Amino acid sequence: MPLVVVGSVAIDHVETPTERRDNMLGGSATHFSYAASFFTSVRLVGVVGEDWPAEHTAVLDEQGIDTSGLQQVPGGKTFTWTGRYHDNMNDRDTLDVQLNVFGEFDPVLPESYRRAKYVFLANGVPAVQMKVLSQVPGRRLAVADTMDLWIKTTRNDLNQLLKQLDGLVLNDSEAKLIAETENLVTAGHRVREMGPKFVIIKKGEHGAMFFSEYETYVLPAFPTEQVVDPTGAGDSFAGGMMGYLAECDNFEPETLKMAMAYGILVASFNVEGFGLERMQQISRKDIDERMTEYKKMLNF
Amino acid sequence: MPLVVVGSVAIDHVETPTERRDNMLGGSATHFSYAASFFTSVRLVGVVGEDWPAEHTAVLDEQGIDTSGLQQVPGGKTFTWTGRYHDNMNDRDTLDVQLNVFGEFDPVLPESYRRAKYVFLANGVPAVQMKVLSQVPGRRLAVADTMDLWIKTTRNDLNQLLKQLDGLVLNDSEAKLIAETENLVTAGHRVREMGPKFVIIKKGEHGAMFFSEYETYVLPAFPTEQVVDPTGAGDSFAGGMMGYLAECDNFEPETLKMAMAYGILVASFNVEGFGLERMQQISRKDIDERMTEYKKMLNF
Repeated sequence: MPLVVVGSVAIDHVETPTERRDNMLGGSATHFSYAASFFTSVRLVGVVGEDWPAEHTAVLDEQGIDTSGLQQVPGGKTFTWTGRYHDNMNDRDTLDVQLNVFGEFDPVLPESYRRAKYVFLANGVPAVQMKVLSQVPGRRLAVADTMDLWIKTTRNDLNQLLKQLDGLVLNDSEAKLIAETENLVTAGHRVREMGPKFVIIKKGEHGAMFFSEYETYVLPAFPTEQVVDPTGAGDSFAGGMMGYLAECDNFEPETLKMAMAYGILVASFNVEGFGLERMQQISRKDIDERMTEYKKMLNF
Repeated sequence: MPLVVVGSVAIDHVETPTERRDNMLGGSATHFSYAASFFTSVRLVGVVGEDWPAEHTAVLDEQGIDTSGLQQVPGGKTFTWTGRYHDNMNDRDTLDVQLNVFGEFDPVLPESYRRAKYVFLANGVPAVQMKVLSQVPGRRLAVADTMDLWIKTTRNDLNQLLKQLDGLVLNDSEAKLIAETENLVTAGHRVREMGPKFVIIKKGEHGAMFFSEYETYVLPAFPTEQVVDPTGAGDSFAGGMMGYLAECDNFEPETLKMAMAYGILVASFNVEGFGLERMQQISRKDIDERMTEYKKMLNF
Protein backbone atom coordinates (compact mmCIF):
# COMPACT_ATOMS: atom_id res chain seq x y z
CA MET A 1 0.00 0.00 0.00
CA PRO A 2 1.24 3.53 -0.74
CA LEU A 3 2.62 5.45 2.20
CA VAL A 4 2.46 9.24 2.48
CA VAL A 5 5.05 11.15 4.47
CA VAL A 6 4.94 14.84 5.23
CA GLY A 7 7.91 16.65 6.73
CA SER A 8 11.19 18.44 6.28
CA VAL A 9 13.40 18.18 3.23
CA ALA A 10 16.69 19.88 3.91
CA ILE A 11 20.28 20.60 3.02
CA ASP A 12 22.53 19.25 5.78
CA HIS A 13 26.06 20.18 6.77
CA VAL A 14 27.50 17.60 9.15
CA GLU A 15 30.73 17.59 11.12
CA THR A 16 31.94 14.46 12.93
CA PRO A 17 35.14 14.11 14.99
CA THR A 18 36.95 12.96 11.83
CA GLU A 19 35.23 14.53 8.83
CA ARG A 20 32.95 17.25 7.51
CA ARG A 21 30.41 17.02 4.69
CA ASP A 22 28.45 19.90 3.20
CA ASN A 23 25.31 20.29 1.14
CA MET A 24 24.00 16.78 1.70
CA LEU A 25 20.46 15.71 0.91
CA GLY A 26 18.82 15.70 4.35
CA GLY A 27 15.62 16.27 6.30
CA SER A 28 13.25 14.03 8.26
CA ALA A 29 10.93 13.23 5.40
CA THR A 30 13.88 12.48 3.13
CA HIS A 31 15.50 9.92 5.46
CA PHE A 32 12.06 8.46 6.19
CA SER A 33 11.17 8.16 2.49
CA TYR A 34 14.39 6.50 1.50
CA ALA A 35 14.12 3.95 4.33
CA ALA A 36 10.46 3.19 3.57
CA SER A 37 11.14 2.83 -0.16
CA PHE A 38 12.74 -0.59 0.41
CA PHE A 39 9.30 -1.88 1.41
CA THR A 40 6.53 0.06 -0.31
CA SER A 41 5.75 2.94 -2.65
CA VAL A 42 6.33 6.27 -0.94
CA ARG A 43 4.72 9.63 -1.62
CA LEU A 44 6.67 12.55 -0.26
CA VAL A 45 5.25 15.94 0.72
CA GLY A 46 7.72 18.69 1.48
CA VAL A 47 8.96 22.09 0.46
CA VAL A 48 12.28 23.37 -0.89
CA GLY A 49 13.61 26.67 -2.24
CA GLU A 50 14.87 27.81 -5.59
CA ASP A 51 18.40 26.84 -4.49
CA TRP A 52 17.44 23.15 -4.32
CA PRO A 53 19.76 21.05 -6.50
CA ALA A 54 17.87 18.96 -9.05
CA GLU A 55 20.26 16.06 -8.39
CA HIS A 56 18.86 15.75 -4.86
CA THR A 57 15.38 15.14 -6.24
CA ALA A 58 16.88 12.75 -8.76
CA VAL A 59 18.26 10.57 -5.92
CA LEU A 60 14.72 10.18 -4.58
CA ASP A 61 13.14 9.70 -8.01
CA GLU A 62 15.62 6.98 -8.91
CA GLN A 63 14.64 5.13 -5.75
CA GLY A 64 11.04 5.19 -6.98
CA ILE A 65 9.84 7.76 -4.43
CA ASP A 66 6.96 9.89 -5.72
CA THR A 67 8.19 13.49 -5.41
CA SER A 68 5.20 15.14 -7.05
CA GLY A 69 4.30 16.46 -3.58
CA LEU A 70 7.67 18.19 -3.21
CA GLN A 71 6.85 21.84 -3.71
CA GLN A 72 9.53 24.30 -4.86
CA VAL A 73 9.09 27.96 -3.82
CA PRO A 74 10.39 30.42 -6.41
CA GLY A 75 12.85 32.82 -4.84
CA GLY A 76 12.80 30.83 -1.60
CA LYS A 77 15.70 29.19 0.21
CA THR A 78 15.75 25.59 1.39
CA PHE A 79 15.79 24.62 5.06
CA THR A 80 19.40 24.02 6.14
CA TRP A 81 20.78 22.32 9.22
CA THR A 82 24.39 22.32 10.39
CA GLY A 83 25.41 20.00 13.21
CA ARG A 84 28.52 18.74 14.92
CA TYR A 85 28.74 15.34 16.63
CA HIS A 86 30.68 14.80 19.83
CA ASP A 87 33.26 12.03 20.23
CA ASN A 88 30.57 9.64 21.47
CA MET A 89 28.71 10.07 18.12
CA ASN A 90 25.49 10.32 20.10
CA ASP A 91 25.38 13.86 21.45
CA ARG A 92 25.49 16.67 18.97
CA ASP A 93 25.42 20.45 18.82
CA THR A 94 23.25 22.22 16.31
CA LEU A 95 25.57 24.88 14.93
CA ASP A 96 23.05 26.54 12.66
CA VAL A 97 19.41 26.18 11.57
CA GLN A 98 17.84 28.16 8.74
CA LEU A 99 14.16 27.19 8.49
CA ASN A 100 13.65 29.31 5.37
CA VAL A 101 10.71 28.01 3.27
CA PHE A 102 10.06 25.19 5.78
CA GLY A 103 9.11 27.86 8.35
CA GLU A 104 6.07 28.71 6.22
CA PHE A 105 5.33 25.12 5.21
CA ASP A 106 1.62 24.68 4.57
CA PRO A 107 1.36 21.18 3.17
CA VAL A 108 -1.32 20.64 0.56
CA LEU A 109 -1.54 17.02 -0.51
CA PRO A 110 -1.91 16.28 -4.25
CA GLU A 111 -5.29 14.71 -5.01
CA SER A 112 -3.73 11.29 -5.63
CA TYR A 113 -2.13 11.33 -2.16
CA ARG A 114 -5.41 11.96 -0.32
CA ARG A 115 -6.66 8.42 -0.65
CA ALA A 116 -3.59 7.10 1.22
CA LYS A 117 -4.23 4.55 3.95
CA TYR A 118 -0.80 4.90 5.58
CA VAL A 119 0.40 8.32 6.71
CA PHE A 120 3.49 9.43 8.59
CA LEU A 121 3.82 12.92 9.99
CA ALA A 122 7.53 13.58 10.43
CA ASN A 123 8.51 15.99 13.18
CA GLY A 124 6.84 19.38 12.68
CA VAL A 125 4.44 21.92 14.16
CA PRO A 126 1.52 19.94 15.68
CA ALA A 127 -1.08 22.29 14.14
CA VAL A 128 0.38 21.62 10.70
CA GLN A 129 0.50 17.88 11.39
CA MET A 130 -3.23 18.00 12.22
CA LYS A 131 -3.93 19.92 9.04
CA VAL A 132 -2.36 17.08 7.10
CA LEU A 133 -4.51 14.50 8.89
CA SER A 134 -7.64 16.37 7.87
CA GLN A 135 -6.62 15.84 4.23
CA VAL A 136 -6.51 12.04 4.54
CA PRO A 137 -9.88 11.21 6.14
CA GLY A 138 -9.85 7.63 4.84
CA ARG A 139 -6.52 6.71 6.44
CA ARG A 140 -6.10 3.38 8.22
CA LEU A 141 -2.92 4.18 10.13
CA ALA A 142 -1.53 7.58 11.10
CA VAL A 143 1.74 7.77 12.98
CA ALA A 144 3.67 10.90 13.96
CA ASP A 145 7.02 11.96 15.34
CA THR A 146 7.46 15.00 17.58
CA MET A 147 10.19 16.85 19.49
CA ASP A 148 10.95 18.67 22.75
CA LEU A 149 10.23 22.08 21.18
CA TRP A 150 6.56 21.23 20.58
CA ILE A 151 6.21 19.53 23.96
CA LYS A 152 7.40 22.76 25.58
CA THR A 153 5.79 25.41 23.39
CA THR A 154 2.62 24.02 21.78
CA ARG A 155 1.46 21.46 24.31
CA ASN A 156 -2.27 22.03 23.77
CA ASP A 157 -1.99 21.44 20.04
CA LEU A 158 0.20 18.40 20.68
CA ASN A 159 -2.35 16.96 23.11
CA GLN A 160 -5.06 17.40 20.48
CA LEU A 161 -2.88 15.73 17.85
CA LEU A 162 -2.17 12.76 20.15
CA LYS A 163 -5.90 11.98 20.30
CA GLN A 164 -6.02 11.66 16.51
CA LEU A 165 -3.02 9.37 16.13
CA ASP A 166 -2.75 5.63 15.89
CA GLY A 167 0.92 5.69 16.83
CA LEU A 168 3.54 8.08 18.13
CA VAL A 169 7.30 7.71 17.74
CA LEU A 170 9.56 9.80 19.95
CA ASN A 171 12.98 9.58 21.55
CA ASP A 172 13.75 8.75 25.18
CA SER A 173 14.40 12.29 26.43
CA GLU A 174 11.19 13.52 24.75
CA ALA A 175 9.20 10.68 26.33
CA LYS A 176 10.52 11.57 29.79
CA LEU A 177 9.71 15.24 29.17
CA ILE A 178 6.14 14.74 28.00
CA ALA A 179 5.31 12.07 30.63
CA GLU A 180 7.13 13.80 33.48
CA THR A 181 8.90 10.68 34.70
CA GLU A 182 12.42 9.28 34.48
CA ASN A 183 11.25 5.67 34.05
CA LEU A 184 10.88 4.90 30.34
CA VAL A 185 8.37 2.09 30.88
CA THR A 186 6.12 4.39 32.88
CA ALA A 187 6.69 7.13 30.30
CA GLY A 188 5.66 4.91 27.40
CA HIS A 189 2.38 3.93 29.01
CA ARG A 190 1.59 7.48 30.11
CA VAL A 191 2.06 8.80 26.57
CA ARG A 192 -0.12 5.99 25.27
CA GLU A 193 -2.87 7.03 27.67
CA MET A 194 -2.76 10.49 26.05
CA GLY A 195 -4.26 9.05 22.87
CA PRO A 196 -2.14 6.93 20.52
CA LYS A 197 -2.91 3.21 20.36
CA PHE A 198 0.80 2.52 20.41
CA VAL A 199 3.91 4.43 21.37
CA ILE A 200 7.48 3.70 20.33
CA ILE A 201 10.37 5.18 22.29
CA LYS A 202 13.62 5.37 20.33
CA LYS A 203 16.74 4.89 22.47
CA GLY A 204 19.40 5.45 19.78
CA GLU A 205 22.30 3.02 20.21
CA HIS A 206 20.21 1.13 22.79
CA GLY A 207 17.32 0.20 20.50
CA ALA A 208 13.61 0.91 20.89
CA MET A 209 10.66 0.18 23.20
CA PHE A 210 7.09 -0.59 22.18
CA PHE A 211 3.95 0.09 24.21
CA SER A 212 0.36 -0.85 23.48
CA GLU A 213 -2.50 -1.56 25.84
CA TYR A 214 -1.53 -5.23 25.93
CA GLU A 215 2.18 -5.29 25.24
CA THR A 216 5.45 -3.77 26.40
CA TYR A 217 8.69 -4.83 24.81
CA VAL A 218 12.22 -3.71 24.04
CA LEU A 219 14.42 -4.62 21.11
CA PRO A 220 18.12 -3.76 21.11
CA ALA A 221 19.91 -1.89 18.34
CA PHE A 222 21.97 -3.90 15.89
CA PRO A 223 25.54 -3.67 17.22
CA THR A 224 27.82 -1.88 14.79
CA GLU A 225 31.33 -0.42 15.02
CA GLN A 226 30.82 1.63 11.89
CA VAL A 227 29.00 4.73 13.14
CA VAL A 228 29.84 7.39 10.56
CA ASP A 229 26.91 9.83 10.78
CA PRO A 230 23.84 9.26 12.98
CA THR A 231 21.82 12.04 11.27
CA GLY A 232 18.43 10.72 10.24
CA ALA A 233 18.71 7.45 12.19
CA GLY A 234 15.40 8.06 13.96
CA ASP A 235 13.68 9.00 10.70
CA SER A 236 14.97 5.94 8.89
CA PHE A 237 13.86 3.82 11.85
CA ALA A 238 10.33 5.20 11.39
CA GLY A 239 10.60 4.78 7.62
CA GLY A 240 11.60 1.12 7.84
CA MET A 241 8.85 0.46 10.34
CA MET A 242 6.05 2.24 8.46
CA GLY A 243 7.27 0.92 5.13
CA TYR A 244 6.97 -2.65 6.38
CA LEU A 245 3.50 -2.03 7.86
CA ALA A 246 2.29 -0.52 4.59
CA GLU A 247 3.79 -3.44 2.67
CA CYS A 248 1.97 -5.96 4.88
CA ASP A 249 -1.14 -3.77 4.95
CA ASN A 250 -1.93 -4.76 8.51
CA PHE A 251 -0.86 -3.76 11.98
CA GLU A 252 -1.45 -6.89 13.98
CA PRO A 253 0.80 -7.24 17.06
CA GLU A 254 3.21 -9.63 15.32
CA THR A 255 3.44 -7.36 12.26
CA LEU A 256 4.16 -4.38 14.49
CA LYS A 257 7.02 -6.19 16.22
CA MET A 258 8.55 -7.28 12.95
CA ALA A 259 8.11 -3.69 11.68
CA MET A 260 9.98 -2.35 14.69
CA ALA A 261 12.80 -4.80 14.04
CA TYR A 262 12.98 -3.68 10.40
CA GLY A 263 13.07 -0.05 11.56
CA ILE A 264 16.03 -0.85 13.83
CA LEU A 265 17.91 -2.58 11.03
CA VAL A 266 17.31 0.08 8.40
CA ALA A 267 18.51 2.69 10.93
CA SER A 268 21.64 0.61 11.53
CA PHE A 269 22.50 0.97 7.84
CA ASN A 270 21.65 4.68 7.81
CA VAL A 271 24.34 5.49 10.42
CA GLU A 272 27.04 3.63 8.50
CA GLY A 273 27.56 6.48 6.03
CA PHE A 274 27.15 10.25 5.71
CA GLY A 275 23.63 11.37 4.85
CA LEU A 276 22.05 8.77 2.59
CA GLU A 277 25.35 7.42 1.23
CA ARG A 278 25.15 3.99 2.84
CA MET A 279 21.44 3.68 2.11
CA GLN A 280 22.14 4.24 -1.58
CA GLN A 281 24.45 1.21 -1.57
CA ILE A 282 22.01 -1.31 -0.12
CA SER A 283 18.99 -3.29 -1.27
CA ARG A 284 16.16 -5.12 0.45
CA LYS A 285 18.35 -8.23 0.30
CA ASP A 286 21.00 -6.61 2.55
CA ILE A 287 18.31 -5.64 5.04
CA ASP A 288 16.90 -9.16 5.05
CA GLU A 289 20.34 -10.67 5.54
CA ARG A 290 20.86 -8.45 8.54
CA MET A 291 17.41 -9.50 9.77
CA THR A 292 18.56 -13.14 9.73
CA GLU A 293 21.62 -12.20 11.82
CA TYR A 294 19.50 -10.09 14.15
CA LYS A 295 16.99 -12.86 14.76
CA LYS A 296 19.83 -15.27 15.42
CA MET A 297 21.31 -12.81 17.90
CA LEU A 298 18.04 -12.67 19.84
CA ASN A 299 17.48 -16.39 19.79
CA PHE A 300 18.70 -18.59 22.65
CA MET B 1 29.08 -27.56 40.18
CA PRO B 2 30.02 -25.42 43.18
CA LEU B 3 30.84 -21.78 42.46
CA VAL B 4 33.30 -19.77 44.52
CA VAL B 5 32.93 -16.00 44.78
CA VAL B 6 35.41 -13.67 46.44
CA GLY B 7 34.58 -10.04 47.13
CA SER B 8 33.03 -7.42 49.33
CA VAL B 9 30.46 -8.09 52.02
CA ALA B 10 29.11 -4.82 53.31
CA ILE B 11 26.59 -2.86 55.27
CA ASP B 12 24.72 -0.52 52.91
CA HIS B 13 22.83 2.67 53.57
CA VAL B 14 20.74 3.65 50.55
CA GLU B 15 18.74 6.77 49.81
CA THR B 16 16.35 6.97 46.85
CA PRO B 17 14.20 9.96 45.84
CA THR B 18 11.38 8.53 47.98
CA GLU B 19 12.91 6.48 50.81
CA ARG B 20 15.98 5.74 52.90
CA ARG B 21 17.11 2.38 54.28
CA ASP B 22 19.97 1.79 56.68
CA ASN B 23 22.12 -1.15 57.72
CA MET B 24 21.15 -3.41 54.85
CA LEU B 25 23.02 -6.58 53.96
CA GLY B 26 25.09 -5.46 50.96
CA GLY B 27 28.35 -5.90 49.07
CA SER B 28 29.29 -7.27 45.65
CA ALA B 29 29.92 -10.83 46.77
CA THR B 30 26.65 -10.84 48.72
CA HIS B 31 24.46 -9.79 45.79
CA PHE B 32 26.39 -12.15 43.54
CA SER B 33 26.00 -15.10 45.93
CA TYR B 34 22.31 -14.64 46.44
CA ALA B 35 21.67 -14.41 42.69
CA ALA B 36 23.82 -17.46 41.92
CA SER B 37 22.20 -19.51 44.68
CA PHE B 38 19.06 -19.98 42.54
CA PHE B 39 21.18 -22.09 40.17
CA THR B 40 24.04 -23.80 41.99
CA SER B 41 25.79 -24.19 45.36
CA VAL B 42 27.75 -21.06 46.22
CA ARG B 43 30.83 -20.70 48.41
CA LEU B 44 31.40 -17.17 49.62
CA VAL B 45 34.74 -15.67 50.59
CA GLY B 46 34.67 -12.29 52.30
CA VAL B 47 35.52 -10.40 55.44
CA VAL B 48 33.41 -8.57 58.02
CA GLY B 49 34.05 -6.88 61.37
CA GLU B 50 32.95 -7.56 64.90
CA ASP B 51 29.95 -5.29 64.33
CA TRP B 52 28.53 -7.68 61.72
CA PRO B 53 24.96 -8.71 62.62
CA ALA B 54 24.55 -12.48 62.83
CA GLU B 55 21.14 -12.16 61.13
CA HIS B 56 22.87 -10.99 57.93
CA THR B 57 24.85 -14.25 57.78
CA ALA B 58 21.66 -16.13 58.58
CA VAL B 59 20.00 -14.72 55.44
CA LEU B 60 22.79 -16.23 53.34
CA ASP B 61 22.87 -19.52 55.26
CA GLU B 62 19.13 -19.99 54.87
CA GLN B 63 19.54 -19.61 51.13
CA GLY B 64 22.05 -22.47 51.23
CA ILE B 65 25.10 -20.31 50.60
CA ASP B 66 28.27 -21.69 52.18
CA THR B 67 29.56 -18.90 54.43
CA SER B 68 32.44 -20.83 55.96
CA GLY B 69 34.75 -18.59 53.95
CA LEU B 70 33.30 -15.44 55.52
CA GLN B 71 36.00 -14.33 57.92
CA GLN B 72 35.13 -12.15 60.93
CA VAL B 73 37.90 -9.87 62.26
CA PRO B 74 37.75 -9.39 66.03
CA GLY B 75 37.68 -5.71 66.90
CA GLY B 76 37.31 -4.81 63.24
CA LYS B 77 34.56 -2.85 61.56
CA THR B 78 32.64 -3.96 58.48
CA PHE B 79 32.91 -2.19 55.11
CA THR B 80 30.04 0.31 54.83
CA TRP B 81 28.72 2.12 51.78
CA THR B 82 26.23 4.99 51.76
CA GLY B 83 24.75 6.13 48.47
CA ARG B 84 22.01 8.37 47.13
CA TYR B 85 20.22 7.76 43.82
CA HIS B 86 19.18 10.58 41.54
CA ASP B 87 15.66 10.92 40.16
CA ASN B 88 16.60 8.83 37.13
CA MET B 89 17.46 5.91 39.49
CA ASN B 90 20.55 5.34 37.37
CA ASP B 91 23.07 7.93 38.48
CA ARG B 92 24.09 7.94 42.10
CA ASP B 93 26.34 9.79 44.52
CA THR B 94 28.47 7.88 46.97
CA LEU B 95 27.95 9.81 50.18
CA ASP B 96 30.33 7.78 52.32
CA VAL B 97 32.63 4.75 52.03
CA GLN B 98 34.37 3.12 54.99
CA LEU B 99 36.53 0.27 53.70
CA ASN B 100 37.43 -0.85 57.25
CA VAL B 101 38.39 -4.57 57.32
CA PHE B 102 37.82 -4.89 53.55
CA GLY B 103 40.74 -2.49 53.04
CA GLU B 104 43.08 -5.19 54.43
CA PHE B 105 41.24 -8.09 52.80
CA ASP B 106 43.68 -10.93 52.14
CA PRO B 107 41.44 -13.77 51.01
CA VAL B 108 42.53 -17.23 52.02
CA LEU B 109 40.30 -19.91 50.58
CA PRO B 110 39.24 -22.78 52.85
CA GLU B 111 40.70 -26.08 51.67
CA SER B 112 37.33 -27.32 50.44
CA TYR B 113 36.95 -24.23 48.20
CA ARG B 114 40.28 -24.74 46.43
CA ARG B 115 39.05 -27.54 44.21
CA ALA B 116 36.36 -25.27 42.73
CA LYS B 117 35.98 -25.31 38.97
CA TYR B 118 33.96 -22.08 38.77
CA VAL B 119 35.35 -18.88 40.28
CA PHE B 120 34.11 -15.31 40.27
CA LEU B 121 36.27 -12.43 41.42
CA ALA B 122 33.93 -9.61 42.37
CA ASN B 123 35.28 -6.08 41.98
CA GLY B 124 38.45 -5.62 44.05
CA VAL B 125 42.18 -4.84 43.90
CA PRO B 126 43.58 -6.71 40.85
CA ALA B 127 46.60 -7.96 42.82
CA VAL B 128 44.26 -9.53 45.36
CA GLN B 129 42.10 -10.99 42.59
CA MET B 130 45.23 -12.64 41.14
CA LYS B 131 46.16 -14.02 44.57
CA VAL B 132 42.78 -15.74 44.66
CA LEU B 133 43.34 -17.27 41.23
CA SER B 134 46.61 -18.80 42.39
CA GLN B 135 44.62 -20.67 45.05
CA VAL B 136 42.36 -22.41 42.53
CA PRO B 137 44.80 -23.86 40.01
CA GLY B 138 42.34 -26.52 38.83
CA ARG B 139 39.63 -24.03 37.84
CA ARG B 140 37.75 -24.43 34.58
CA LEU B 141 36.23 -20.95 34.38
CA ALA B 142 37.43 -17.74 36.06
CA VAL B 143 35.50 -14.54 35.52
CA ALA B 144 36.13 -11.16 37.14
CA ASP B 145 34.53 -7.76 37.55
CA THR B 146 36.54 -4.55 37.81
CA MET B 147 36.01 -0.80 38.14
CA ASP B 148 37.31 2.60 37.00
CA LEU B 149 39.52 2.98 40.09
CA TRP B 150 41.70 -0.03 39.15
CA ILE B 151 41.76 0.94 35.47
CA LYS B 152 43.14 4.33 36.50
CA THR B 153 45.44 3.39 39.39
CA THR B 154 46.66 -0.21 39.00
CA ARG B 155 46.63 -0.69 35.25
CA ASN B 156 49.69 -2.95 35.11
CA ASP B 157 48.21 -5.37 37.63
CA LEU B 158 44.90 -5.25 35.83
CA ASN B 159 46.57 -6.04 32.49
CA GLN B 160 48.26 -9.04 34.11
CA LEU B 161 44.96 -10.20 35.59
CA LEU B 162 43.21 -9.92 32.22
CA LYS B 163 45.63 -12.45 30.72
CA GLN B 164 44.61 -15.00 33.37
CA LEU B 165 40.86 -14.65 32.97
CA ASP B 166 38.34 -16.59 30.94
CA GLY B 167 35.81 -13.80 31.16
CA LEU B 168 35.54 -10.17 32.23
CA VAL B 169 32.35 -8.35 33.21
CA LEU B 170 32.41 -4.56 33.35
CA ASN B 171 30.06 -1.67 32.82
CA ASP B 172 29.83 0.59 29.77
CA SER B 173 31.74 3.58 31.14
CA GLU B 174 34.53 1.29 32.39
CA ALA B 175 34.74 -0.42 29.00
CA LYS B 176 35.08 2.94 27.25
CA LEU B 177 37.75 3.98 29.73
CA ILE B 178 39.90 0.88 29.46
CA ALA B 179 39.56 0.59 25.67
CA GLU B 180 39.90 4.32 25.01
CA THR B 181 36.98 4.49 22.58
CA GLU B 182 33.40 5.73 22.74
CA ASN B 183 32.04 2.90 20.59
CA LEU B 184 30.97 0.01 22.82
CA VAL B 185 31.34 -2.63 20.12
CA THR B 186 34.91 -1.55 19.48
CA ALA B 187 35.51 -1.37 23.23
CA GLY B 188 34.27 -4.91 23.83
CA HIS B 189 36.56 -6.38 21.22
CA ARG B 190 39.56 -4.35 22.35
CA VAL B 191 39.15 -5.54 25.95
CA ARG B 192 38.82 -9.11 24.71
CA GLU B 193 42.13 -8.74 22.88
CA MET B 194 43.73 -7.87 26.23
CA GLY B 195 43.24 -11.43 27.41
CA PRO B 196 39.77 -12.71 28.39
CA LYS B 197 38.10 -15.22 26.07
CA PHE B 198 34.88 -13.33 26.48
CA VAL B 199 33.85 -9.87 27.66
CA ILE B 200 30.46 -8.75 28.84
CA ILE B 201 29.58 -5.07 28.96
CA LYS B 202 26.74 -4.22 31.34
CA LYS B 203 24.58 -1.31 30.17
CA GLY B 204 22.26 -1.06 33.19
CA GLU B 205 18.69 -0.34 32.07
CA HIS B 206 19.77 -0.98 28.47
CA GLY B 207 20.87 -4.60 28.95
CA ALA B 208 24.23 -6.21 28.20
CA MET B 209 26.59 -6.94 25.30
CA PHE B 210 28.63 -10.09 24.75
CA PHE B 211 31.93 -10.39 22.88
CA SER B 212 33.93 -13.47 22.00
CA GLU B 213 36.25 -14.11 19.09
CA TYR B 214 33.33 -15.40 17.03
CA GLU B 215 30.30 -13.62 18.40
CA THR B 216 29.00 -10.17 19.23
CA TYR B 217 25.50 -9.74 20.56
CA VAL B 218 23.28 -7.52 22.68
CA LEU B 219 20.35 -8.47 24.85
CA PRO B 220 18.03 -5.80 26.26
CA ALA B 221 17.12 -5.44 29.92
CA PHE B 222 13.75 -6.75 31.04
CA PRO B 223 11.47 -3.69 31.04
CA THR B 224 10.21 -2.88 34.50
CA GLU B 225 8.47 0.10 36.06
CA GLN B 226 9.32 -1.02 39.55
CA VAL B 227 12.86 0.27 40.06
CA VAL B 228 13.19 0.57 43.83
CA ASP B 229 16.95 0.22 44.44
CA PRO B 230 19.48 -0.57 41.70
CA THR B 231 22.27 -1.36 44.20
CA GLY B 232 23.84 -4.70 43.37
CA ALA B 233 22.14 -5.05 39.97
CA GLY B 234 25.47 -5.63 38.21
CA ASP B 235 26.56 -8.15 40.83
CA SER B 236 23.31 -10.08 40.66
CA PHE B 237 23.60 -10.04 36.85
CA ALA B 238 27.02 -11.71 37.20
CA GLY B 239 25.64 -14.08 39.85
CA GLY B 240 22.75 -15.25 37.71
CA MET B 241 25.06 -15.71 34.75
CA MET B 242 27.82 -17.60 36.58
CA GLY B 243 25.29 -19.60 38.59
CA TYR B 244 23.69 -20.87 35.40
CA LEU B 245 27.08 -21.73 33.83
CA ALA B 246 28.12 -23.66 36.94
CA GLU B 247 24.74 -25.44 36.97
CA CYS B 248 25.17 -26.50 33.33
CA ASP B 249 28.89 -27.16 33.86
CA ASN B 250 29.76 -25.97 30.39
CA PHE B 251 30.36 -22.71 28.62
CA GLU B 252 29.45 -23.47 25.06
CA PRO B 253 28.25 -20.43 23.06
CA GLU B 254 24.55 -21.32 23.50
CA THR B 255 24.99 -21.84 27.25
CA LEU B 256 26.77 -18.50 27.56
CA LYS B 257 23.91 -16.70 25.82
CA MET B 258 21.31 -18.33 28.01
CA ALA B 259 23.47 -17.50 31.03
CA MET B 260 23.56 -13.85 30.02
CA ALA B 261 19.77 -13.84 29.70
CA TYR B 262 19.44 -15.36 33.18
CA GLY B 263 21.81 -12.71 34.52
CA ILE B 264 19.63 -9.98 33.02
CA LEU B 265 16.47 -11.46 34.54
CA VAL B 266 17.89 -12.03 38.01
CA ALA B 267 19.14 -8.42 37.98
CA SER B 268 15.64 -7.26 37.00
CA PHE B 269 14.31 -8.81 40.23
CA ASN B 270 17.18 -7.40 42.29
CA VAL B 271 16.23 -3.79 41.46
CA GLU B 272 12.59 -4.31 42.43
CA GLY B 273 13.29 -4.00 46.15
CA PHE B 274 15.79 -2.49 48.58
CA GLY B 275 18.96 -4.53 49.07
CA LEU B 276 18.06 -8.21 48.82
CA GLU B 277 14.41 -7.76 49.81
CA ARG B 278 12.90 -8.69 46.46
CA MET B 279 15.38 -11.52 45.94
CA GLN B 280 14.26 -13.05 49.23
CA GLN B 281 10.70 -13.24 47.92
CA ILE B 282 11.41 -15.14 44.72
CA SER B 283 12.26 -18.67 43.67
CA ARG B 284 13.73 -20.25 40.58
CA LYS B 285 10.18 -20.67 39.33
CA ASP B 286 9.67 -16.88 39.24
CA ILE B 287 12.91 -16.46 37.31
CA ASP B 288 11.88 -19.13 34.81
CA GLU B 289 8.45 -17.55 34.36
CA ARG B 290 10.12 -14.26 33.55
CA MET B 291 12.42 -16.13 31.17
CA THR B 292 9.36 -17.36 29.27
CA GLU B 293 8.09 -13.76 29.00
CA TYR B 294 11.54 -12.50 27.99
CA LYS B 295 11.94 -15.08 25.25
CA LYS B 296 8.48 -14.24 23.96
CA MET B 297 9.41 -10.56 23.94
CA LEU B 298 12.46 -11.26 21.76
CA ASN B 299 10.65 -13.57 19.40
CA PHE B 300 9.11 -12.24 16.17
